[in-house]
Amino acid sequence: MAKPKIRLFVEHGLNVGNSVPLTQDQAHYLFGVMRLGVGDQVLLLNSRDGEWRAEVVEAAKRRGVLRCDVQTKPLQMPPDLWLLFAPIKKARTDFIVEKAAEMGAARIVPIQTDFTNSERIRHDRLQSHAIEATEQCGGTYVPEVAALSRLDRVLADWPADRQLMFCDEARVGPAETLADASKGPWAILIGPEGGFSEAERNRLIALPFTTPISLGPRILRADTAAVAALTLWQSALGDWQ
Amino acid sequence: MAKPKIRLFVEHGLNVGNSVPLTQDQAHYLFGVMRLGVGDQVLLLNSRDGEWRAEVVEAAKRRGVLRCDVQTKPLQMPPDLWLLFAPIKKARTDFIVEKAAEMGAARIVPIQTDFTNSERIRHDRLQSHAIEATEQCGGTYVPEVAALSRLDRVLADWPADRQLMFCDEARVGPAETLADASKGPWAILIGPEGGFSEAERNRLIALPFTTPISLGPRILRADTAAVAALTLWQSALGDWQ
Repeated sequence: MAKPKIRLFVEHGLNVGNSVPLTQDQAHYLFGVMRLGVGDQVLLLNSRDGEWRAEVVEAAKRRGVLRCDVQTKPLQMPPDLWLLFAPIKKARTDFIVEKAAEMGAARIVPIQTDFTNSERIRHDRLQSHAIEATEQCGGTYVPEVAALSRLDRVLADWPADRQLMFCDEARVGPAETLADASKGPWAILIGPEGGFSEAERNRLIALPFTTPISLGPRILRADTAAVAALTLWQSALGDWQ
Repeated sequence: MAKPKIRLFVEHGLNVGNSVPLTQDQAHYLFGVMRLGVGDQVLLLNSRDGEWRAEVVEAAKRRGVLRCDVQTKPLQMPPDLWLLFAPIKKARTDFIVEKAAEMGAARIVPIQTDFTNSERIRHDRLQSHAIEATEQCGGTYVPEVAALSRLDRVLADWPADRQLMFCDEARVGPAETLADASKGPWAILIGPEGGFSEAERNRLIALPFTTPISLGPRILRADTAAVAALTLWQSALGDWQ
């Protein structure tokens, strides 16, 4: 039997024979949009128990129940990598969250910088994008979207053992690379489209846990820079090796 | 004086004292949208003469003339890199073209594959996206968007000296890397969201100029894959070094 194509994130525990109730939205999607019915199969993930095949055992317009059958993939945690980025325009912000999930970041941290205007984010919406992207890309762990925080506070509370890849578009001179960098917890910092302020740059460069990295001779949009930086990190230190 | 922020692609030659007439759209953008007038400055690029500062000498509603003043950047050709991709959805196709220009591809080649439905593309629209992205990212060369071609024909006419990085999402086993790859003309091939057909994969793997590359354990959307692949290539063999 072909593997089911639809993948759904659920909160429930996944194990042999477990019943998994659907939310209204999920029931509408499966039965109203995708036209599934009793006996059809989907794949489930919950960020804890890997991926499971499940069968529809009850299907109504706004509710439904699945029954877990067999594990189809173990839990594959992404590397311990955070993506810090400064949200600006809605569509680009959505893209950055989607890309971070696809690329295998474990945590997504929206930050306010000197050149960021946004006072708030739609957190639920961003978390939904992370869920959809994980369902789509075959991952088994949905990265957590953190609350919006000020960059200076995030740096003041920085965990002692976490290194920071600082993507510095104003960087002059030879770039560092990740070739000799050590593994362990990392974070990537992408600036807003106006870049970082002089004060922020000076502070970031002076921090002991920071590695400034160049993303080439052209100025990248923030969403492009996020994917490029995640690629450099994943291929040098992460799970692409 | 601060460097002008507006960058415009024009067809005209750029040299000291040259007069550069604007198109209707450019005049509307500069004078109607951005509220520039006689004496204001912009930066110009034309893919041949680098970047030039120019001053507005005539400004009307639908026409205008700039006068070239001084070269602010030499022509910086991107590496001889093509991006081959299979267009599917409109917004993602636009993004791929934008990303390819930002990331420094020299030529963008839309292809039809076994799993691509699109019979045509809006070529002018895609070329405009490449122009806008180049204006935005500070580049001085706009990549050419080629006509839509069938993958089998592109491979049949393949230039003898050009290597092909084949981003194979169905790849099993150890990935090759670009670490020992040789410089020179290259192309990157990104599949459609349904992947390549078995026949296409077999043909691609058997070709003597092909290097299959993995983009990690998750399935990336085509636009994410394009940026990730361009990053791997630029950082190993291109102008990010």
